[in-house]
Amino acid sequence: MAILGCGNVGAALVGILQTRADALAVQAGARWEIAGIAVHDMDAARPPHVPIELLTTDAAALVADETVDVVVELIGGLEPAGSLVRAALDSGRPVVTANKALLASHEGVALRTLADARGVDLLYEAAVAGAIPLVRALRQSLTGERIHRVMGIVNGTTNFILTKMGEQGADYASVLAEAQALGLAERDPTADVEGFDAAAKAAILAGVAFGYNVSDDAVIREGITGITSADVDFARRAGYVIKLLAVVERSGEDGLSVRVHPALVPNAHPLASVRDAFNAVFIEGEAAGELMLYGQGAGGLPTASAVVGDLIDATRNLLAGTTAPAPEREPAHLVPEADLMAGFYISLDVADRPGVLGSVTTAFGANGVSIRSVEQEGGSGEARLVFVTHLAREGDVRATLDVLEGLDVVERIGGVMRIVGVA
Amino acid sequence: MAILGCGNVGAALVGILQTRADALAVQAGARWEIAGIAVHDMDAARPPHVPIELLTTDAAALVADETVDVVVELIGGLEPAGSLVRAALDSGRPVVTANKALLASHEGVALRTLADARGVDLLYEAAVAGAIPLVRALRQSLTGERIHRVMGIVNGTTNFILTKMGEQGADYASVLAEAQALGLAERDPTADVEGFDAAAKAAILAGVAFGYNVSDDAVIREGITGITSADVDFARRAGYVIKLLAVVERSGEDGLSVRVHPALVPNAHPLASVRDAFNAVFIEGEAAGELMLYGQGAGGLPTASAVVGDLIDATRNLLAGTTAPAPEREPAHLVPEADLMAGFYISLDVADRPGVLGSVTTAFGANGVSIRSVEQEGGSGEARLVFVTHLAREGDVRATLDVLEGLDVVERIGGVMRIVGVA
Repeated sequence: MAILGCGNVGAALVGILQTRADALAVQAGARWEIAGIAVHDMDAARPPHVPIELLTTDAAALVADETVDVVVELIGGLEPAGSLVRAALDSGRPVVTANKALLASHEGVALRTLADARGVDLLYEAAVAGAIPLVRALRQSLTGERIHRVMGIVNGTTNFILTKMGEQGADYASVLAEAQALGLAERDPTADVEGFDAAAKAAILAGVAFGYNVSDDAVIREGITGITSADVDFARRAGYVIKLLAVVERSGEDGLSVRVHPALVPNAHPLASVRDAFNAVFIEGEAAGELMLYGQGAGGLPTASAVVGDLIDATRNLLAGTTAPAPEREPAHLVPEADLMAGFYISLDVADRPGVLGSVTTAFGANGVSIRSVEQEGGSGEARLVFVTHLAREGDVRATLDVLEGLDVVERIGGVMRIVGVA
Repeated sequence: MAILGCGNVGAALVGILQTRADALAVQAGARWEIAGIAVHDMDAARPPHVPIELLTTDAAALVADETVDVVVELIGGLEPAGSLVRAALDSGRPVVTANKALLASHEGVALRTLADARGVDLLYEAAVAGAIPLVRALRQSLTGERIHRVMGIVNGTTNFILTKMGEQGADYASVLAEAQALGLAERDPTADVEGFDAAAKAAILAGVAFGYNVSDDAVIREGITGITSADVDFARRAGYVIKLLAVVERSGEDGLSVRVHPALVPNAHPLASVRDAFNAVFIEGEAAGELMLYGQGAGGLPTASAVVGDLIDATRNLLAGTTAPAPEREPAHLVPEADLMAGFYISLDVADRPGVLGSVTTAFGANGVSIRSVEQEGGSGEARLVFVTHLAREGDVRATLDVLEGLDVVERIGGVMRIVGVA
């Protein structure tokens, strides 16, 4: 085995391989030997259990080593990880990786397609939702299942922020600062809070659950930076919590929708109880019904645990001369955002004078958006209207918002969010 | 493939095999043909999609048919299911079954041991928690993981009853009647409410998670029939819900505890939000941390979905000449009930006069049980004391209860339940 990268996950992996060596040999059907550990800097500080004599800076030579049966890629990022994974697959060696950025890139789509076509294992349980056995559940347990929807909380940072906003009534900026102080958010939080990380995972899930290999730039994406205390407040009073969701679902005859956005989730929904930095993925299948898998989405040890599960699979498959099954592709195309159907929450700051509600609701009606409820707050010249719609076409909602924006009684369009569970 | 049994699950399985035939052939690597469907009564009413020409009453002959590669056992119960499964395994053919009663019996332990020893697949994802991909997660994803504890809500009937008691304040008898009217509880509810069904699943989980093959009669078992509205009420006020849990956990150096009992689960625990007839299993692993798998635990289609997943595995393994990995056995012995450690909830009806609290708490102290909190309710001659203990040895708690029973100030010992999450 070649291990590429020795950061948190790599070091945790080496530790598990050492302390559980006997048990793992039984499970895998063979005893693993680490041929080498490729690192960028030989002199970086590392835990004492990492064997220094196995370190090398020549990752390409390590992958080219003919005694290496399996390659574990834990470098992260696009390059050199992509070239190294490609070299391993090209030579017919299975690869285990936790690299979601690579897998969700255009090169990642090519690598996944290559692995399927060549019949070489490219396993990546660790790339989505850490130790949660999600990829294997979808690729194996549910491989005979017609999946309707996969909907998950796959980013711990944003879930921590939204949990605190919901439970403590704190505003976005102060909770973000708290998350940064706790090390749960990066100094530049863009990848998390703008939904880029979740979008990469949504792209990977589209491949795993629906056989539709898509790159992350094709994922419809919206982050959580626009969510206000007023939105959180309304959600709580109406029996919802706000979650950033990655959603992959069938739409229409043979369409697929892949997207990331905040949504109002009813309190009784299993995803609503997923708090703090935990991850969970909710799966709806034709025969299996509703399933949810919950756990830690990040961290060196949980991620390394998922890598170990994949290593056992790869080794057993290698010994048996087989590979993990490739998912069958059923949906034929991605559905444009405008054609998606959802219930919507829409908050408007309006002038507080007679006739306002009439002209606003007329805009909804003219665009075919049916209102389920409206709530008015405020007084003294300005008021807030909060609408909840029935199931509506997203394009019609956007057209409504365009009209509303042009009305002089509308001061400002506040939160606009989809609602889970509106039929 | 031979299908033994054509009730709800069998008929649902035949339906899935027909409507998803092409997709399943791709996933399994071979197209399945049903050689025959063994039934008890040729003339029983069946859905129109079940092909009558494949029905036979001679299950033994069907299993003996040399063209049959895989046997699916959906008859349920101990016999003739046990003999048929044994015949199939003896002849080296893999078996997929949903029969928890058989698997958890002494014969089931023998069959599981036989399958491991002979290297023949005996797969039973459907036997525990329906469509939830629990068995595969434990046998594959987490096979390299050192599991500390598996703790689950694995009986939908009792979870429905406890949910209604908790949310509607209804008493046990009236909710049981409601569950029976809805078809969620049997006319004779003993198997569910006394924990026998959950105990069978706990026994199976001990084998899957810890490689410890135990039969259900070795499982420590307590049902929900003694739970009162007062218990539910206290739990709610104290921030808990009551759940019937199947628990399999390491205890001490090399011990294992396998048990079923009601417990107080903190509201913030993921298991607390599992409502109505849903099942969920919480797993704690050394590297993976906390995981939870949630879904429908029963029903023809969800169960058939799990059978299909196993059939795909069995077929792929057969084609590759391999089998599912057998879990490594680590614990060496079952821990006696008296040696288990837990926090306890204890409710006592006592005389309402001075000195009562003193003599009661002395009984706790004398037996080494440390009290975390006590709450007194009532007045007018009688009162209720509700104790919550720190972590205590179960034998010490039982000894305390024996002393309390002998005190003349104690009118009655009410609810005694373990509490999840006390450290």
